[in-house]
Amino acid sequence: MPKIIKEKSIFKSKLFNIKQTKIKFDNQILDYEIISGTGSGAVLIVPILSDEIIFIKEYAAAVDDYMITFPKGKIDDGEQLIEAANRELQEEVGFKSDSISLIDKIYLAPGYIDHITYVMMATNLKPSSLQGDEPEGLESIRVSRKKIDIFLNNSPIVDSRVFAAIHFIQNYDK
Amino acid sequence: MPKIIKEKSIFKSKLFNIKQTKIKFDNQILDYEIISGTGSGAVLIVPILSDEIIFIKEYAAAVDDYMITFPKGKIDDGEQLIEAANRELQEEVGFKSDSISLIDKIYLAPGYIDHITYVMMATNLKPSSLQGDEPEGLESIRVSRKKIDIFLNNSPIVDSRVFAAIHFIQNYDK
Repeated sequence: MPKIIKEKSIFKSKLFNIKQTKIKFDNQILDYEIISGTGSGAVLIVPILSDEIIFIKEYAAAVDDYMITFPKGKIDDGEQLIEAANRELQEEVGFKSDSISLIDKIYLAPGYIDHITYVMMATNLKPSSLQGDEPEGLESIRVSRKKIDIFLNNSPIVDSRVFAAIHFIQNYDK
Repeated sequence: MPKIIKEKSIFKSKLFNIKQTKIKFDNQILDYEIISGTGSGAVLIVPILSDEIIFIKEYAAAVDDYMITFPKGKIDDGEQLIEAANRELQEEVGFKSDSISLIDKIYLAPGYIDHITYVMMATNLKPSSLQGDEPEGLESIRVSRKKIDIFLNNSPIVDSRVFAAIHFIQNYDK
């Protein structure tokens, strides 16, 4: 197993901390750059309403276009996973749930980003809204579980975490 | 559609360019931080050997552990997608291919990262190796296409792009 022998932060902002690390392999020592989040990670919620799943369409600043994703957001300081998920669910799709469970974790690009996204499944949804910090209303899209592949194939920009979350949900049921 | 009204770089390193943007929505103007790559994106290759797919197990610096992923790497300056894919294939799994095609694009986390990964499918594999810049040998893992779900469910750390690539491959065949 390689070993981290040195680590220092070379940039810090509100959202990101870029670290430089020296890693010792069997025959050599290499320098890496790593993007580290500044918080406790994020939750992503798959809202399930009988045989439908609720996606959202949200403006994605880095590609200056709309993407298909799931409700998600940073975990606030001191907040539990289920609490964060229930808050985001109310802010982004207008539902609350008393049946939220952690089903898996997503590693975005673990070679250079240490962000972890906790995938939460929410069932037993009841209408309830909270005002979030979204700059515009988010469009909810309900898709029958049988038509998810068709829906994603017809969506030009899909957050990569959607594919991981769908895999986890489909395998959770088995 | 929101509009980017200002953009400036606040940090630049070998790999990353962090940008601050001001985006105008209908009712407000918000500041965003965006991670931008410094190159032309990356290729990720799904190597197919009759009814098996070849994964790799690689050290992932950001989580200081081994992950399951596919051969992948940055596109060099002036390099074509297929050329980059064939180079990475030889460096990371010891095969070359004359049947490589682009099947889709992965948007990692388009809310805050603009990285695009081109998903390439490689069939008709022939043994051929090139020396890459990997600090240690990579373990190849051949998995029957029917057992991919079981394999991924039993792998604790999986690069999120694997799930997207598997989705694209499975839907490409249809």
